[in-house]
Amino acid sequence: MNRPFVFINIAMTVDGKIDTFERRGAAISSQRDKERVDRLRASADALMVGGKTLLGEDPKLTVKSEALRAERVAQGRSPNPVKVGIVTEANLKADSNFLNTGPAEIVIFTTRRTSKEQLSLLKARHVHVYAAEAEKVDLQHALAVLKGMGVERLMVEGGGTLNFELMRLGLVDELTAYVAPLIFGGASAPTMAAGSGLERNAAIPAKLINVEKWDDGGVLLKYHFTR
Amino acid sequence: MNRPFVFINIAMTVDGKIDTFERRGAAISSQRDKERVDRLRASADALMVGGKTLLGEDPKLTVKSEALRAERVAQGRSPNPVKVGIVTEANLKADSNFLNTGPAEIVIFTTRRTSKEQLSLLKARHVHVYAAEAEKVDLQHALAVLKGMGVERLMVEGGGTLNFELMRLGLVDELTAYVAPLIFGGASAPTMAAGSGLERNAAIPAKLINVEKWDDGGVLLKYHFTR
Repeated sequence: MNRPFVFINIAMTVDGKIDTFERRGAAISSQRDKERVDRLRASADALMVGGKTLLGEDPKLTVKSEALRAERVAQGRSPNPVKVGIVTEANLKADSNFLNTGPAEIVIFTTRRTSKEQLSLLKARHVHVYAAEAEKVDLQHALAVLKGMGVERLMVEGGGTLNFELMRLGLVDELTAYVAPLIFGGASAPTMAAGSGLERNAAIPAKLINVEKWDDGGVLLKYHFTR
Repeated sequence: MNRPFVFINIAMTVDGKIDTFERRGAAISSQRDKERVDRLRASADALMVGGKTLLGEDPKLTVKSEALRAERVAQGRSPNPVKVGIVTEANLKADSNFLNTGPAEIVIFTTRRTSKEQLSLLKARHVHVYAAEAEKVDLQHALAVLKGMGVERLMVEGGGTLNFELMRLGLVDELTAYVAPLIFGGASAPTMAAGSGLERNAAIPAKLINVEKWDDGGVLLKYHFTR
């Protein structure tokens, strides 16, 4: 397989929302879930986000726990996984969390829509930039490039558009969802799989692997997708 | 409490969709879940749907199982629960499933936006019509009317707009969600709680009551809301 093992992790409300209609990155995870996510991050070789998440939420995308970072280093790995952004038109600020929190290698897959100024900024910051002469990033190609860089386990942290594209293309192996005991509502509030959506007969089947009922009122669901 | 015990039942995909973007009433439940829903219906005194579901999907809204209907009759109850529609502008057809599948008492809560012709049609069909001199149906009032009719257990079967309004107003006691092992995707595909949505600090907390992992790959989640 010319790509890493790809797993999506999300936190959502009972009504399937990964944020409120305001899209400000609403807190959904419990403390215990945050720790689980951090361990999951520490297990990955790279962490990937899509353009809206990258530019809208400016995530740090690092392992939070010093102990987990030290553990990685003791294993001969970098303290943080490689950070990967998939963004049609990159427009990162020089002082963004994404570029400045680390240390971590950074890879950006983008298109011809990204300006030369941005490309210069990214290169000056030693970001590995793959700018395709196209309107859209080729996800299959991006995964092959990451595999070539030695990425065996890739964690995808949203948003819904990237998640959906990866699942639609059959490029996802595992999905973990923490369901928080909350209702956000909102016809426009984002869900874990956005994009144009599929017709009923094209729906993607998932295989339920595990269900955990947590004391914090959360439910942890794990699914596999057959390659 | 001047209202029935109100419970919402839904079937959704892992990505929180209750239908595809096409909104044609996509099948989501497994056979076992359909049987569970039918038993739940048979336990109710009334079944409620919102306007989009009523006019768009034209549900029969009856107990499917002859045995369950017979059981109800043996208990001195009507074979089917009362059917309730909440619809700002009613526009039911004389040959609709909703009006013709039964026998069942039918109650429509609507507003002044419903035409006189429709009101005449509904009355000719012995539908109990409550047409408010307002732009929106008052849900609290509707529940009080149903309670006055002897409805102690009300099952709400969507859609997302009605579900959200009821939850927002604190009028829901219980939520049961069957999570089918499917991904539909779609930023515009409907979820169980639509409407305008809530800000993070106004999110509705739910209490996780039960989690079941089913052999068909589904997960059954049950939540309570504190009155």
